[in-house]
Amino acid sequence: MSPELRRRVAQLLVVRASGHLSDGQRRYPRWELRNAELQQLLAQGVGGVILLGGSAAELRLRTLQLQAWSPAPLLLCADVEEGVGQRFEGASWLVPPLALAGLHHRDPAAALELAERYGRCTGREARALGLNWVLGPVCDVNNNPANPVINVRAWGEDPATAGSLACAFLRGAQAEGVLCCAKHFPGHGDTATDSHLDLPLLEHSRERLEAIELPPFREAIASGVASVMTAHLLLPSLDAERPATLSKAVLTDLLRRDLGFDGLVVTDALVMEAIAGRYGAGEAAVLALEAGADLVLMPADAEAAIEAIVAAVQSGRLSEERLQESLERRSRALNALPPPAEADPDAGFTPLGPLRNGPLPEDRQLAVELVRRSLEVQSPASMPLAPGDGGLNLIRLDHPLASPFLMASAPALSRPSAAGLKPCLITPQAPSPWRNDAEAPLDLARLGEGPVVLQLFVRGNPFRGSAGGGEEPWEAAIRQLQNLGRLAGLAIYGSPYLWRRLRTLVAPGIPAACSPGQMPLAQEAVLAALGLGPAPSLPGDPSGEAACGSGAGRDGQRTGFTD
Amino acid sequence: MSPELRRRVAQLLVVRASGHLSDGQRRYPRWELRNAELQQLLAQGVGGVILLGGSAAELRLRTLQLQAWSPAPLLLCADVEEGVGQRFEGASWLVPPLALAGLHHRDPAAALELAERYGRCTGREARALGLNWVLGPVCDVNNNPANPVINVRAWGEDPATAGSLACAFLRGAQAEGVLCCAKHFPGHGDTATDSHLDLPLLEHSRERLEAIELPPFREAIASGVASVMTAHLLLPSLDAERPATLSKAVLTDLLRRDLGFDGLVVTDALVMEAIAGRYGAGEAAVLALEAGADLVLMPADAEAAIEAIVAAVQSGRLSEERLQESLERRSRALNALPPPAEADPDAGFTPLGPLRNGPLPEDRQLAVELVRRSLEVQSPASMPLAPGDGGLNLIRLDHPLASPFLMASAPALSRPSAAGLKPCLITPQAPSPWRNDAEAPLDLARLGEGPVVLQLFVRGNPFRGSAGGGEEPWEAAIRQLQNLGRLAGLAIYGSPYLWRRLRTLVAPGIPAACSPGQMPLAQEAVLAALGLGPAPSLPGDPSGEAACGSGAGRDGQRTGFTD
Repeated sequence: MSPELRRRVAQLLVVRASGHLSDGQRRYPRWELRNAELQQLLAQGVGGVILLGGSAAELRLRTLQLQAWSPAPLLLCADVEEGVGQRFEGASWLVPPLALAGLHHRDPAAALELAERYGRCTGREARALGLNWVLGPVCDVNNNPANPVINVRAWGEDPATAGSLACAFLRGAQAEGVLCCAKHFPGHGDTATDSHLDLPLLEHSRERLEAIELPPFREAIASGVASVMTAHLLLPSLDAERPATLSKAVLTDLLRRDLGFDGLVVTDALVMEAIAGRYGAGEAAVLALEAGADLVLMPADAEAAIEAIVAAVQSGRLSEERLQESLERRSRALNALPPPAEADPDAGFTPLGPLRNGPLPEDRQLAVELVRRSLEVQSPASMPLAPGDGGLNLIRLDHPLASPFLMASAPALSRPSAAGLKPCLITPQAPSPWRNDAEAPLDLARLGEGPVVLQLFVRGNPFRGSAGGGEEPWEAAIRQLQNLGRLAGLAIYGSPYLWRRLRTLVAPGIPAACSPGQMPLAQEAVLAALGLGPAPSLPGDPSGEAACGSGAGRDGQRTGFTD
Repeated sequence: MSPELRRRVAQLLVVRASGHLSDGQRRYPRWELRNAELQQLLAQGVGGVILLGGSAAELRLRTLQLQAWSPAPLLLCADVEEGVGQRFEGASWLVPPLALAGLHHRDPAAALELAERYGRCTGREARALGLNWVLGPVCDVNNNPANPVINVRAWGEDPATAGSLACAFLRGAQAEGVLCCAKHFPGHGDTATDSHLDLPLLEHSRERLEAIELPPFREAIASGVASVMTAHLLLPSLDAERPATLSKAVLTDLLRRDLGFDGLVVTDALVMEAIAGRYGAGEAAVLALEAGADLVLMPADAEAAIEAIVAAVQSGRLSEERLQESLERRSRALNALPPPAEADPDAGFTPLGPLRNGPLPEDRQLAVELVRRSLEVQSPASMPLAPGDGGLNLIRLDHPLASPFLMASAPALSRPSAAGLKPCLITPQAPSPWRNDAEAPLDLARLGEGPVVLQLFVRGNPFRGSAGGGEEPWEAAIRQLQNLGRLAGLAIYGSPYLWRRLRTLVAPGIPAACSPGQMPLAQEAVLAALGLGPAPSLPGDPSGEAACGSGAGRDGQRTGFTD
């Protein structure tokens, strides 16, 4: 086998690594390569790495390390759709994109300006940490509230909103010197199946796709988006056999020919069950390139993918031209980028550059503005919840051991605790709070006395069990608490659909609020509306502490002291 | 006020900072200075920082940053009693010291050799990350099993064991070029009150202190320990009025004169309620120096402490000689250290040196050996727990949102899940699993069907409510599960006292095991004994993955995929 051919093929792979530095810190060792394997693959010419996990500081060291392991410039990417801080602590964590859809209806100019700043912030911080490829914006139109995988990640529920806001984001981000990625082509918004687990089927006609799914992608292409990510979806109207990721009809005929896209086409993760389970690691990679993709993301087995593509070129199944085309698109994309961020001479000891003490003031201001503009409040609290009343702080979440937004010091715990409310986590991994009574489902005798603040962290749809908790009778629970005069406040973090459904149940005078964000800053804003602590303030305010999202003080953990 | 006097006084302070780099990442903003304050204090001459939080990579950047902010060499310390990885992820996390006490009775030479390697590992890793002062070994004799604050942090339950092992640790650590700290003088092992919350009273006579509490400190002093930390304890036989930290009788008469210690005496954190609540920030610092301390750790208000000490020197209350003596001891200690670790030229891009991919093989080997040698097993499993049986994985812990040993990928979750056992967290922050039946207290109808693996993470004494959970009837719960034929295994992580109490209840044939450690490596060892997965292997074994403590594979979190 020609080593030269092998090296060229390897460039088209994007493999997965942890943003943490050591093998022992990997959170997903099944998917994240060990350093020795990673170093070997990069030495062989593998051309890209997708990173997840670790803090901003760790990621900065990690990208320097990966680039040093590679003989040529790498594509370094991450799923930082909601700000770099969504994935890498210490950078900006912003409300999810759908937060701006409502504002866009009322005040399009304001929403577009915020979306562009959202992109600027994300691009600037990504670049400062050594990433050059932001895997966003999501261009899917979330017109199906039951969508378990897109949901608030979309910029809109209609094509015009989704397209305009996504493009404002991508213009902002690409102006900061990173590549963006419009996803998931040809549109993943109207699915109710999770493609991480199985292959969703989308029965729409080409006409319907032209009306709903395609416009945001057309607009992103017109705005100069550098790359497009494929969806793991079956669209029988376009290709009865192959999912979009592996379909020539979708990638070559529709995306390249009809939509005229000549940038990078990257697959979604080939390791996902919908692809890996049906084809093999090698065959899936070959099929993707045959269909018209340029880059192969997270093949289930990188070695097997390289071998299979090399064999396909040698056998003539994949033409030399097809390969060369993809290599040239990759080079063009990389060459269009400004040179990587220099080490900041002022920083001296730290390679974090502008992020050396967290987000810049302008980005903290953006984070606060986004939270304020997307906060929905019904009956704000007329007075603070007084400490000493006792009571319960019921917090519903998917998994208490995998909730980066809910550390022990998070406002959702510390503020109710300061008002005397005892925390109680409602989660599938703890004893059930429910009893067998449809009208009064909460087993309150077991949970405790006093007023109840209900905080629901939900991004999927808990009524359908998509979030792992099965059917959760929150409507009845709210009625039950109100009938007893015990509901002191309702907070929803994440799903606007759940909010629309539950807000109508809450009696006038009982404070209720919702943020599409789940991070500490969103908690501060929502809890302030419930009479629990101050609202987030802008940097420069005397009480600007809160805007950093650090949570409030003492949480009773022994480790907080020196020993 | 003389700026020169102010600068000299400031050198004696050790202030607290987060190991994270940005203000917004502080976990304890009430106690951890903001970067701007920290930078200002260091510029004014503050001479030491105690660090908590962040990963090994972040700590390395942090120590470089702090030293760059200071005009003179700093004392940089951390409570890394159980390996640097106990506090800073990515370094070695070792079983707690008391793990070696049992081995020391059976095989003193082996225990001493392991304790010295424990010290070597801790000293080497601390130095590699820029720390030069290890706040250990604990020299307290834990002869009171109800001790809520020392417990497994001690090296023994009798003076000879505690002294020998603590000294082996400190010889190892100091040989690697860091200062150690014998604590908490004159002995905190026989208290049942937590000095973090209130001032414990120790009614023992001087004779008794000579017999039990003092020998390990005498031995540490003879072994050349660089520093001694004071205890926040009232010992009426020595000083009827002042706690040890502020007592001339304890620090000057006993420690300096009778025990002949001429190294650094540092207070325990002055911010602790037992001190801060009774004296003020300034007065406590002055009293400590008056009593004979050299360094003031975590004053409740650094500015106030500096002002008060300066005023005391100017008024003649504190003599110039007293001040000069402490400054000289500090200089001597710093000057005795080798120069700080150089940046490793091989590492290039990362300042992590030998820790660039986690612990060195020799240290991973040590971590595994310590777990193996301290594992206690009763009736190991005769066969693996088969997947498909269903059942429950009941995990008792203090706080699910503040348990670094129990991430979603931890073996305590992933291994039982792989065998079909559903996790259920028993914690004060979730609905109660108990019902009002003293003989059969677990409300099993609510928890689920099938075999039960019981995993108790306990370091204090849960029967006394010290761990926050009130009375927890685990003895009755074990009997209940056994009577129903549902107990499939018992795992205890942490307290040997709880183990001694519960192991006798477990029927022959039901696997049960205990590790004094709670980290992933300890979980692997214990669960292997319960028939759930392989035992930790040494580096170099083909299955060496496990020894990194990274946990096992898939845990069903969506964030594990790319989106």
